[in-house]
Amino acid sequence: MIQWKNGELPKPPFIASIFNYFLSEDLEGYVAYDDLTLELAKKMPGYLGYESFKHDGRGAFISYWRDMDAVRAWAAEPKHIEAKQKGKSTWYRYYHSIIAEVKTMHTHH
Amino acid sequence: MIQWKNGELPKPPFIASIFNYFLSEDLEGYVAYDDLTLELAKKMPGYLGYESFKHDGRGAFISYWRDMDAVRAWAAEPKHIEAKQKGKSTWYRYYHSIIAEVKTMHTHH
Repeated sequence: MIQWKNGELPKPPFIASIFNYFLSEDLEGYVAYDDLTLELAKKMPGYLGYESFKHDGRGAFISYWRDMDAVRAWAAEPKHIEAKQKGKSTWYRYYHSIIAEVKTMHTHH
Repeated sequence: MIQWKNGELPKPPFIASIFNYFLSEDLEGYVAYDDLTLELAKKMPGYLGYESFKHDGRGAFISYWRDMDAVRAWAAEPKHIEAKQKGKSTWYRYYHSIIAEVKTMHTHH
């Protein structure tokens, strides 16, 4: 389930950043960076929420942002850049990264 | 990993339909509908690909479509409508459904 910031559901339009990955076998430093970057992301201006799935080496991390400026600021955060470089060179066998503008959202409880 | 139709990566813009759910304990008929609707979706015009995560009762199904007309045609497919009704009344404790326009996509192997 999405962990919305302060439990508040945003109204579209906002931005979804969808990151899907398949982990490699060399995960040195991975968990520490994973925890750190999540904590940093939560503190960025325009951060709205996230959800994460991880099972058997495959995963998806979807984060939600107020606008493209917020996405760009997060992309330029120094620790996030370090994590992306380590991810590309070492931790991820495969990934793809999608930036999409949310047009509608329906929730059912 | 995304199963792209015919192994072809589409170029943005295209549409992502992100469906996240938390299953209930009454799953009668769920697996049969799940299999059937995936097979039907794959045959719809404008279907581009999908990926699915499911673990411990939580899951995400993300499907990709050429445009909003393709999304609307799939939303109106009779078996899909039946599945959505059963899902709402019985199978899902919670879900949310997001329609988003993909602006950029990067893949790393």
